[in-house]
Amino acid sequence: MNGRVIALAGGVGGAKLALGLSRVLAPGALTVIANTGDDFTHLGLAISPDIDTLTYTLAGLADPLQGWGRRGETWAFMTALQQLGGETWFRLGDQDLALHVERTHRLVAGESLSAVTERVRQRLGVATAIVPMTDDTVRTRLRTDEGWLDFQDYFVRRRCVPCVHEIAYHGAENARPAEALRQSLADETLRAVVICPSNPLLSIAPILAMPGVRAALAGCTAPVIAVSPLIGGQAVKGPTAKLMRELGKEVGVGGIARCYAGLIDALLIDAGDRPAGPAQEIEWIDAPLLMSTIEDREHLAVAVLAAADRLSRRAG
Amino acid sequence: MNGRVIALAGGVGGAKLALGLSRVLAPGALTVIANTGDDFTHLGLAISPDIDTLTYTLAGLADPLQGWGRRGETWAFMTALQQLGGETWFRLGDQDLALHVERTHRLVAGESLSAVTERVRQRLGVATAIVPMTDDTVRTRLRTDEGWLDFQDYFVRRRCVPCVHEIAYHGAENARPAEALRQSLADETLRAVVICPSNPLLSIAPILAMPGVRAALAGCTAPVIAVSPLIGGQAVKGPTAKLMRELGKEVGVGGIARCYAGLIDALLIDAGDRPAGPAQEIEWIDAPLLMSTIEDREHLAVAVLAAADRLSRRAG
Repeated sequence: MNGRVIALAGGVGGAKLALGLSRVLAPGALTVIANTGDDFTHLGLAISPDIDTLTYTLAGLADPLQGWGRRGETWAFMTALQQLGGETWFRLGDQDLALHVERTHRLVAGESLSAVTERVRQRLGVATAIVPMTDDTVRTRLRTDEGWLDFQDYFVRRRCVPCVHEIAYHGAENARPAEALRQSLADETLRAVVICPSNPLLSIAPILAMPGVRAALAGCTAPVIAVSPLIGGQAVKGPTAKLMRELGKEVGVGGIARCYAGLIDALLIDAGDRPAGPAQEIEWIDAPLLMSTIEDREHLAVAVLAAADRLSRRAG
Repeated sequence: MNGRVIALAGGVGGAKLALGLSRVLAPGALTVIANTGDDFTHLGLAISPDIDTLTYTLAGLADPLQGWGRRGETWAFMTALQQLGGETWFRLGDQDLALHVERTHRLVAGESLSAVTERVRQRLGVATAIVPMTDDTVRTRLRTDEGWLDFQDYFVRRRCVPCVHEIAYHGAENARPAEALRQSLADETLRAVVICPSNPLLSIAPILAMPGVRAALAGCTAPVIAVSPLIGGQAVKGPTAKLMRELGKEVGVGGIARCYAGLIDALLIDAGDRPAGPAQEIEWIDAPLLMSTIEDREHLAVAVLAAADRLSRRAG
């Protein structure tokens, strides 16, 4: 065991736990694999919401209240764009915009998303590697009672209001998973794989939808520990519970566990939560999941790592 | 005579006179033809400095001190871009950026530069038509003692320091002049053509370099009146005098007149200026050329129009 940990993460909840893990692990021991299914092109700019939330959070630049975007953000660009009649449903802060413009410029010049992401995290002094799940294009789309919607159309423009009947991860079937993900899952010295408390259907499923990822997780010698995004049966943030209900899944930690059936060794759940459905062959570990303070994040990270070390697949 | 006037203009000086003309003419009577030889792509954004200076000036949004960019501009984007290691030699304000992002987005979607420019001026409540000299790509480049430089490299990054040996207007020979320019110059009811006090070599020459423009100006039935960009032999702003010297031209109003030889009926010059070279067959009209206040701009506009009406080519 070399102490290296990889975490699969989406946006805000994933970033909070990633920050906790980064603070209790040795510098550079953590690699975060970021969902890119939420990525989109807006106003001609390549926007990667989950990568950016992870980057800003790990750099200490995230807005402390909303958890995404930059602290001390200003909105002069948006005000001027509105004056020009541009699209304003997706809000881009003046500071945040620098990242989108710089990324788009470099992608057009032929750099990969992973190279751009790596350069940015280095410039911002982030020790944790942040790796897009793939450099290929994967786009999450939702079939709703208003028809098929692109993810951000559903999530931001329509505020998750439409009822969802189906979710598709376009391009995932042909996407090449990130080298860091494939190598880590095959690494017999890896300490743990952590599935962060992100939406399993929107944030983690695109990662799992890529060829070979489920098999690599199932066959990984390191323990795979997931953290429930639900507390008291409700999502801390976002549409997880609503989506699970609309898609006919058990709304609760049992439903979360079933999303990861055959892949995980344990699921960390909040003290009040219990699976309603039939038992599943994983460990259910109680832990305080609400991550309000930085100490909360560190404590949860410690609990995740303790569970991993106890459940090491090599131990058997 | 229908009272319509067209003005050929570059950046700051041209925009000041265009504003004066717009205020003394009937609403909509003025069409400004904007130089696009300074346009460039920076950070993937399509930037049209002269169009934007004209637009902001005519909309009353221009920074009152520097004459370009927007008043009350903020720089959060640039600060964040610097933090990311992006290129910062060309400063883009947060508000200004909205125009570049919106324009780039629309150009990529297939709109013409003239359509984008028209939409923007309407949104900003500008009554004067602002027309790019062409929708084709023309790029001013300068052969200097540091080799060939793109215009903005010379003008902004190198601050006009390199000695210039030659100027080229790439693409001008194949560019289609704007419909509004061609139609106006052929319009027998046009009141006047005004060549604004812009740099003749950098701002006006690209317009004149397009096929048919010189001939159309020479054959135009309306009077063509130019305003010198020099006061006391010096440019009010920018490298006009330095460039003329480096290119072996007479640095003074005689040199300006020679740039427009065969095209203009009169040149408005500041009281202290006199041509040093041999006489040219145009009228030299004294007028206060310094446009510090809005009244200065209106007075100069009135002087230009008075000269035009007196020298109407149809009068003979």
